[in-house]
Amino acid sequence: MQGTPQETALQTIRYGGDYNPEQWPEQTWLEDVRLMREAGVNLVSLGVFNWGILEPAPGEYDFSDLDRMIELLHENGIGVNLGTPTSSPPAWLRQSHPEIRLVDFDGRVMAGGSRHGVCPSSPAYTEACANIVERLAERYGDHPAVEMWHLHNEYGWANVECYCDTSAAAFRGWLAEKYVDIGQLNDAWGTAFWGLVYRSFDQVETPSAAPPGVNPALKLDWKRFSGDAHIANYLLQRDIIARYSKAPATTNFMIPNCEDMDYFRWAPVVDIVSNNHYLIAERPENHIELSMSADLTRSVAGGPWMVMEHSTSAVNWQPRNIAKTPGEMRRNSLAHLARGADGLMFFQWRASRAGAEKFHSAMLPHGGTDTQVWRDVVSLGGELKRLAPVVGSNVESDVAILWDWESWWALELEWRPSEDLRFRERVEAYYASLWKQHVTVDFAHPESDLSGYRLVVAPSSYLLSEAAGKNLRGYVENGGNLLVSYFSGIVDEHDGVHPGPHPGALRETLGLWTEEFHPLHQDEAPALDSGARGRIWSERVRLEGAESVAAFAGGPDAGHPAITRHRLGGGTAWYAATALDDATGLRSLLAEVLDASGVQRPAGVAESVELIRRGDHCFLINHGDQDTTVPDLRGTDALTGADYDGDVPVSAGEVVVVTITKE
Amino acid sequence: MQGTPQETALQTIRYGGDYNPEQWPEQTWLEDVRLMREAGVNLVSLGVFNWGILEPAPGEYDFSDLDRMIELLHENGIGVNLGTPTSSPPAWLRQSHPEIRLVDFDGRVMAGGSRHGVCPSSPAYTEACANIVERLAERYGDHPAVEMWHLHNEYGWANVECYCDTSAAAFRGWLAEKYVDIGQLNDAWGTAFWGLVYRSFDQVETPSAAPPGVNPALKLDWKRFSGDAHIANYLLQRDIIARYSKAPATTNFMIPNCEDMDYFRWAPVVDIVSNNHYLIAERPENHIELSMSADLTRSVAGGPWMVMEHSTSAVNWQPRNIAKTPGEMRRNSLAHLARGADGLMFFQWRASRAGAEKFHSAMLPHGGTDTQVWRDVVSLGGELKRLAPVVGSNVESDVAILWDWESWWALELEWRPSEDLRFRERVEAYYASLWKQHVTVDFAHPESDLSGYRLVVAPSSYLLSEAAGKNLRGYVENGGNLLVSYFSGIVDEHDGVHPGPHPGALRETLGLWTEEFHPLHQDEAPALDSGARGRIWSERVRLEGAESVAAFAGGPDAGHPAITRHRLGGGTAWYAATALDDATGLRSLLAEVLDASGVQRPAGVAESVELIRRGDHCFLINHGDQDTTVPDLRGTDALTGADYDGDVPVSAGEVVVVTITKE
Amino acid sequence: MQGTPQETALQTIRYGGDYNPEQWPEQTWLEDVRLMREAGVNLVSLGVFNWGILEPAPGEYDFSDLDRMIELLHENGIGVNLGTPTSSPPAWLRQSHPEIRLVDFDGRVMAGGSRHGVCPSSPAYTEACANIVERLAERYGDHPAVEMWHLHNEYGWANVECYCDTSAAAFRGWLAEKYVDIGQLNDAWGTAFWGLVYRSFDQVETPSAAPPGVNPALKLDWKRFSGDAHIANYLLQRDIIARYSKAPATTNFMIPNCEDMDYFRWAPVVDIVSNNHYLIAERPENHIELSMSADLTRSVAGGPWMVMEHSTSAVNWQPRNIAKTPGEMRRNSLAHLARGADGLMFFQWRASRAGAEKFHSAMLPHGGTDTQVWRDVVSLGGELKRLAPVVGSNVESDVAILWDWESWWALELEWRPSEDLRFRERVEAYYASLWKQHVTVDFAHPESDLSGYRLVVAPSSYLLSEAAGKNLRGYVENGGNLLVSYFSGIVDEHDGVHPGPHPGALRETLGLWTEEFHPLHQDEAPALDSGARGRIWSERVRLEGAESVAAFAGGPDAGHPAITRHRLGGGTAWYAATALDDATGLRSLLAEVLDASGVQRPAGVAESVELIRRGDHCFLINHGDQDTTVPDLRGTDALTGADYDGDVPVSAGEVVVVTITKE
Repeated sequence: MQGTPQETALQTIRYGGDYNPEQWPEQTWLEDVRLMREAGVNLVSLGVFNWGILEPAPGEYDFSDLDRMIELLHENGIGVNLGTPTSSPPAWLRQSHPEIRLVDFDGRVMAGGSRHGVCPSSPAYTEACANIVERLAERYGDHPAVEMWHLHNEYGWANVECYCDTSAAAFRGWLAEKYVDIGQLNDAWGTAFWGLVYRSFDQVETPSAAPPGVNPALKLDWKRFSGDAHIANYLLQRDIIARYSKAPATTNFMIPNCEDMDYFRWAPVVDIVSNNHYLIAERPENHIELSMSADLTRSVAGGPWMVMEHSTSAVNWQPRNIAKTPGEMRRNSLAHLARGADGLMFFQWRASRAGAEKFHSAMLPHGGTDTQVWRDVVSLGGELKRLAPVVGSNVESDVAILWDWESWWALELEWRPSEDLRFRERVEAYYASLWKQHVTVDFAHPESDLSGYRLVVAPSSYLLSEAAGKNLRGYVENGGNLLVSYFSGIVDEHDGVHPGPHPGALRETLGLWTEEFHPLHQDEAPALDSGARGRIWSERVRLEGAESVAAFAGGPDAGHPAITRHRLGGGTAWYAATALDDATGLRSLLAEVLDASGVQRPAGVAESVELIRRGDHCFLINHGDQDTTVPDLRGTDALTGADYDGDVPVSAGEVVVVTITKE
Repeated sequence: MQGTPQETALQTIRYGGDYNPEQWPEQTWLEDVRLMREAGVNLVSLGVFNWGILEPAPGEYDFSDLDRMIELLHENGIGVNLGTPTSSPPAWLRQSHPEIRLVDFDGRVMAGGSRHGVCPSSPAYTEACANIVERLAERYGDHPAVEMWHLHNEYGWANVECYCDTSAAAFRGWLAEKYVDIGQLNDAWGTAFWGLVYRSFDQVETPSAAPPGVNPALKLDWKRFSGDAHIANYLLQRDIIARYSKAPATTNFMIPNCEDMDYFRWAPVVDIVSNNHYLIAERPENHIELSMSADLTRSVAGGPWMVMEHSTSAVNWQPRNIAKTPGEMRRNSLAHLARGADGLMFFQWRASRAGAEKFHSAMLPHGGTDTQVWRDVVSLGGELKRLAPVVGSNVESDVAILWDWESWWALELEWRPSEDLRFRERVEAYYASLWKQHVTVDFAHPESDLSGYRLVVAPSSYLLSEAAGKNLRGYVENGGNLLVSYFSGIVDEHDGVHPGPHPGALRETLGLWTEEFHPLHQDEAPALDSGARGRIWSERVRLEGAESVAAFAGGPDAGHPAITRHRLGGGTAWYAATALDDATGLRSLLAEVLDASGVQRPAGVAESVELIRRGDHCFLINHGDQDTTVPDLRGTDALTGADYDGDVPVSAGEVVVVTITKE
Repeated sequence: MQGTPQETALQTIRYGGDYNPEQWPEQTWLEDVRLMREAGVNLVSLGVFNWGILEPAPGEYDFSDLDRMIELLHENGIGVNLGTPTSSPPAWLRQSHPEIRLVDFDGRVMAGGSRHGVCPSSPAYTEACANIVERLAERYGDHPAVEMWHLHNEYGWANVECYCDTSAAAFRGWLAEKYVDIGQLNDAWGTAFWGLVYRSFDQVETPSAAPPGVNPALKLDWKRFSGDAHIANYLLQRDIIARYSKAPATTNFMIPNCEDMDYFRWAPVVDIVSNNHYLIAERPENHIELSMSADLTRSVAGGPWMVMEHSTSAVNWQPRNIAKTPGEMRRNSLAHLARGADGLMFFQWRASRAGAEKFHSAMLPHGGTDTQVWRDVVSLGGELKRLAPVVGSNVESDVAILWDWESWWALELEWRPSEDLRFRERVEAYYASLWKQHVTVDFAHPESDLSGYRLVVAPSSYLLSEAAGKNLRGYVENGGNLLVSYFSGIVDEHDGVHPGPHPGALRETLGLWTEEFHPLHQDEAPALDSGARGRIWSERVRLEGAESVAAFAGGPDAGHPAITRHRLGGGTAWYAATALDDATGLRSLLAEVLDASGVQRPAGVAESVELIRRGDHCFLINHGDQDTTVPDLRGTDALTGADYDGDVPVSAGEVVVVTITKE
């Protein structure tokens, strides 16, 4: 949550889901509201996709169903999270303004019959958005049931980039505003390479298909522009609503599975950060990815936030939509809560009979109320009432992992030294290893204030601006501990290599330079003399102040440093020149670095148990299939009221929340 | 064959192939006709692709070669199956009417230099088709050599769907005719989902690229429309020809390897059902797929039919065009005959020297007459004369498998619970297991009269209309036996989930409902307590009248029913909630169900022997590499005249046809 | 080198690389020139991509930087290889003439921000090329530093084929010139197949997407036309420059990794053949592919040539850009030298900080001069001075492998008998086996004079014109030895099957014909009775003069010939009807054929040692990890001055060059 004046603090845990009454006869509405009350639902997202129903023809409106539904919920004490329907423009708008259709990278004009598919820079679309939003805001802006505004839906999904002429012109305008003078752009983009210099902004084209490799700086600014085009649409809507309503506005982020939106740019413009998270169903230990999502969302928000969508069980858009196992929905929801969520909303309330998502699970499944899913939904609703005291409290951490969407984008542009260099691969490796050692982490932008952390980890920080480099150096000099992995600090914000040897932005901080990169063959896994084993990457490290902690024992850099440590000012900077994983050396490296950094971890806790402290609550989530005990906790069970004085039993698959009464 | 008045009964087995005299000098024609007679050829398909030769410029005609060729064949007692050349429009038509070019899903305009590539809804193309067909019909309509008309070629191959503006308008017209009122369309398509409602038919777009998921009901009607566009072209041609000729008309189907044509809609409009079938060369046991093709073609035809194209050996368009092994061509041809074919035609008579298909095998290969292929062609021609008595007789079966192209389409639209849900995967699993148990099957549409069958199998009947559901219920209540596999009866004809729990259309018939689907991981294979092993699918079955025959012993539904049986009225409905294969439990399940249904199977016959009864002929085809004996047959060898009184020896790779004289 | 009058003989080994001073401040220029001298650089490629800098707006020029740079190099005794910048047209040209943008197979219009992406047939582009080339030629044509002209860059990379309307018109013009009469085209292309006949040239379309299979003869002529469009651009530039300059002109070929340019057509139009070669980094034994590249380039050139680009270490555009191992750069460079290169140039001099290729290695890496790469560059420069005596001398060979780009194209068009039929697969199998037996080979066009060779190998000569067939027959009859692999001599220059049985162009020469092709299953590997083992292919060989040397012992042709030998006139023609590899029978077959052909090989040389004789120099390159000795050489070490009289030691990874003083 941002500290804006119009913010409505969440004083209970918000619980509910998307509801689309237009899909059902009115008698079903009454049943639905009765069941919502049974489940403890206190917030419903309405109207996320109903533009075509509210405005069946240009300037013709029909709010009758929405009026009635809002009243019905209000009468039943259920709040409304009111959507603006702009992510699914009506067929008449596409018909009367065919120029609004999104054009993709391959030049294909997107068809209708789906949502999205619209150019975010289109004037006709923008005008129509402003109009429908204003109609909604003036009609419902002061309705007491409207507790929150849900603007658009999933900005940046399936239509992130538009390559139409309107977008091209908007891109050129964006560039002119950013660089003012074309010479500045030429310098920033390094257009001397391949003679790609521009004489004026109107010579710049969008980076659609153009083999071979397109100027990476052009692509990077294109991604920035494309994100900003969506932010502009959000701001337009937000400002209209603010004229009519005091309720806070949000839009649902998709952290971390939307690569294309830089949520560090989004967070300041929303009143409440809300996020959609869906498990990657076929991935082993996917609950760790959920934890990472929650930690990153909290870090982006700078405090509590809410889950706008997650699922009670399977989704419908993955290759194999594996259903959740017994207790998994509860573990997922409570893990979000533990990591800072003040609201737990689902897509969706009632499973649809038609359309693209009818096989997506819901709070109320096709099978009705005699189902385990429904019983679990009711039970969770009851538990959340008992857990209301956690609302507004914070999660604190001694460790931060650097995260930067721009670095992600840059690292995965064309023509890097190895296609195995993947941003999330390294971040997730470090995150998972820390998770298994019960270390709760924040994520931090490389240019942010890091002074509160005992340890900062930079798993794959390819792009680091000069300012970020200085920030990290200052952090170490002032006593911080920094652990950097390979191929970090290589380029600046325009994907230009920092002057001098790699890693330019970190050379002095790490006390070393790299003579040559040695990407490894696909299955190559050289040993280190520490017994660890690397993958993906090797390089010729030249020490320049740092000392070698472990050396390569094989591969192209056998005998040369693989892990180094550099004392600088009051702190220490570590470097790992190859890819270690939890089992192949990362766990012991991290243990050593955590110890050296003075980061405490709980002792005697099984690896499968997720242990998170939020305010004065300690959440224990057992993801394993063995019953276990967590030692050394004193307090009260927030769900059962039981007292603990030391060992807390946590059965397989169970969640225990302890209100700590004595540290 | 359909019982239409103009039908010419096939009184001999038609034998021959496509012939393209325009590719050869006239002296080769004489050699060809001599060799045709040597091979016993009695029907030749002429003119399938010669539009550019017959009409070299608009309104300019040259029938001289075709005149001479028809005379030459006629003089030699060989019939003509006269093609209309509309599947390969001439270059001048593309040049003068560039708007006829087909536009594909990605918006690409198809180039020339190939066949197809034309919009089936194009007025200019349609007009040009009508003209050339009328010219052919008036010239050759009463020629005594013309025994059959071969309209177009392979409707629906490589140009099934056209996304051009003309097609879009035609689609809207088709929808307006079907739904009359746009409200009906909105209801049928469930457009309330994502607010995709239409105000008028002219707002509907073709479902070209539009991520994410497009309304599945739109896609389903698009596939129906696209098929109808081709049927309309056929009907245009058929009606013109009928004004000049009494010879029956056909077009070559591609069963089952063309997914896009609903041949249940096509069969009533042709006078004779004819089919192209090519082996999937690299597939093990591909002769079973051939059998399935023949059974399905017969079922679609409702009686005897003909093979319009198969190959003497390799084709040219598969990744590895494996040639046929010794005897394989004969086994293939006679298997078609056994399963109801009254004609056995090849593509093509003489191997081409140029063009895209020059490496396709032919009756007369590049190597000439001193080749095994040629000797086999001559030998087969001789045998077919002796087998003429089978013409017109029927294949009868106690077992039907449900088949529905619309269900196939619907099941494989976007966003199903698992990508492993594939229509043919399940149908082929059940078909193969029945084949190996020597059960000859019919295929039946779910809404057709099933009362003649002892057992009906529904391997993957995802889409079942309410009428189909009632039909199946009535079938069981009236004493039928029904075996249903998972994910059947889920949606109606608009891909809308039937109200209530799954499987809506079959819930009462099966005596159960499904609480939740549990798609399995890729390599997950839970055991059943019967010793069987499932794949792909599991689900939580809730009994509601049915009894459990076998339960899951592992996986997400361990301890819950996997196979059930429901006594209903005079019949029984079985359900299999997971994917069994012949070796992992399907064979024994089918054996149990066949026994319970009173379906007789021949005893003592080796698994590799295909045994089919057609009229009073029994075909024995040994696909194995061991000689064997089939017991308990009494009759005369239709090829050698030998008498059998009990055991009939069938050598490895051989075919024996017994005229049964005593049951 | 071609024997043209304007040729400047290379009297020293040219050493240097691409240099782009526009990417650096002027103070860096001075450092660069100092370091160039330290490294022994004597030639620098300038201005390859600087059009946008030289001509910042239409008709506005700025040669000041280039003037200064040329003077600076000249003052330092370094020659200039002056580029024409036409491969990277400036943004203003794309803006003012949007019609120059290349349209790809899928109809996508190529964007800017990259190089290439332009229609080679575009009049506006052509005119702008001519203008900037003329400006350069008049300004620098008689400058003494300009020793060579580097026209364009990598013709045919990333924009080989353009499908725009301008290209379509140019293609039709090219066809009209080639065939004169449309009837000739119809005959040549076999358009009777599928009725694809044309009435006039303006009915021909470019072969963009048009499923199913497009006429292969159309595709083949399209590839010829597309190559010629690039040659036309080269000739335009060459002729302009020749009016101002006597320095030789070249353009950098990409042998053998550019499939699309027929370098047999290119070689006669350049004054010096130059080539770019980059290792396929992840391929085992990729030094053999380098040898093949060098031998093919020498054969195309008809004598000495130069390397225009290779790399000091890793490139940036492969999936994993593996760096070179210690000594590998030197082995690579000297292998090129050994096989006929008179110049060894790198891309590029100094590693770029920005743009698409900043992770490409360079002579001067990001790490600067305290690096192994730099030390190796300096050391190699020194050695090349000592090796200057090899300049101009020749490599001679007793063995030729047939090579024909048109046959490569034809073989890999759609719809061949097996997708495993790949041109390079077979050529490389034969080449590698000969390499390991220390046989240096030439490559030869099938219609060229072969009389100088003891043995000619035709590993995959699918397309052989009638003239080529006669040429090979004459070669054998006159005493030559020919070894042919399967699927050779099948089609003529229009991809038309030669009349009669396969292999039409070789039937009489080989003394056999093929009854049927039997492509093998993916993992099928039938044994031969010789103990060899085949892959990919089998066929039914019918002897007609030849004798069987080995027969298939398994597979579809068990008992029939697999290897045959035919005595014809004074020579012998061998045939291998399946794919043998070095270890599975090819080595012993080649040994037998080499012996029978009287081809000498050095005895007692380790397999890992590359031994090549160029003039009176013998190069010994040890690619293995064991020290070894090469016997029987007498002479002086060209690098160290040591004397050898018999055994020459060659350490692991080392290169020894012996000036032979006594044979």
